[in-house]
Amino acid sequence: MTQPIDFWFTAGSTYTYLSVMRLPALAKAAGAEVRWRIFRLRDILDATTKVVPFPAGSAKRDYMARDIARRADRYGIAIRTPVPYPLPDQSFANRVATLGMREGWGVDYVRAAYRRWFQEGQPSGAEPNLSASLAEVGQDPARVTALANSDEIAAALVAQTNEARQAGLFGSPSFVVGGEVFWGDDRLEDAIAWAKAGSLKRAGY
Amino acid sequence: MTQPIDFWFTAGSTYTYLSVMRLPALAKAAGAEVRWRIFRLRDILDATTKVVPFPAGSAKRDYMARDIARRADRYGIAIRTPVPYPLPDQSFANRVATLGMREGWGVDYVRAAYRRWFQEGQPSGAEPNLSASLAEVGQDPARVTALANSDEIAAALVAQTNEARQAGLFGSPSFVVGGEVFWGDDRLEDAIAWAKAGSLKRAGY
Repeated sequence: MTQPIDFWFTAGSTYTYLSVMRLPALAKAAGAEVRWRIFRLRDILDATTKVVPFPAGSAKRDYMARDIARRADRYGIAIRTPVPYPLPDQSFANRVATLGMREGWGVDYVRAAYRRWFQEGQPSGAEPNLSASLAEVGQDPARVTALANSDEIAAALVAQTNEARQAGLFGSPSFVVGGEVFWGDDRLEDAIAWAKAGSLKRAGY
Repeated sequence: MTQPIDFWFTAGSTYTYLSVMRLPALAKAAGAEVRWRIFRLRDILDATTKVVPFPAGSAKRDYMARDIARRADRYGIAIRTPVPYPLPDQSFANRVATLGMREGWGVDYVRAAYRRWFQEGQPSGAEPNLSASLAEVGQDPARVTALANSDEIAAALVAQTNEARQAGLFGSPSFVVGGEVFWGDDRLEDAIAWAKAGSLKRAGY
């Protein structure tokens, strides 16, 4: 019996693009249910390690951009470089995605917004990406913006972030399967293997 | 023509254990020459991002320990948990390894020291690991300790660290192939693919 996968992410995360594009097909092939969960990674980092994942001007940020481009190519996923980073309003991007998950259009919206961000250079959660991606999933930008800015969605994000902290998360994307945490798009195959077998498949050596 | 792989590491790095155990066989199968290069990661991090890879008490440190154990199991590499971390004297561990690379016994020594650290719970670069691992490669601990503490080895480490910084490195292990940086044991297969083909093999989807 394949276990469900909790897919935790923050909408401003770059490596999450690879998972957003890869996860649906991989999970379907494995027969695994996926629960898309959004959290505010920055709140967790600010409260604990103060670590910025990819500091401006650092070698690590340059590496991240190059590594994602190489991996996208390896996976046959379209990408247009340079990709804008960081997002101008990561908070709003998370709120819109949270509303979408509640209303049922979240997964399609997140994938549409990531495609525009990584394939057309339009930052997620800002115009023109916002209206175009919402239109693609049949949603009205004015209504969505008003609801996304509501206290209810803000409270939901705080609650989800607390849950992520309790689960031991510190980065995006993360996959949680039966209490095991897998961090990073490069652990997606591990998470799938764990969902299927409760352990990692042995590599061939 | 397979390109050579520069394998950069710092002797106190945990994930480097997986690469130290995996790299020789993978490189041999690919026909790739490997150059083992040591650098002081902490000097680079202190001077730039101030990031500690796995802060004490953080969820990230707990995750690292679990992730390495799962991956070692997946690779069929022995591990005994909990693994001591951080090393009591990472600097000395780097100096001994640097001397060993100069004198030709470095690779075997580093692998022996990592095995004792991860399989027997003996921190690398400290007793009883030091004397036992040196004996395994036919070296006298008193002679090695004196030379490892020399100004010449200290200067060599500074020079190697500067070279690593110039190459854009910010973590261990890192693999550099034809100017491309691959960071992390989980990028070892990417580095091998790049050494063989100058690009990443397309995954099957």
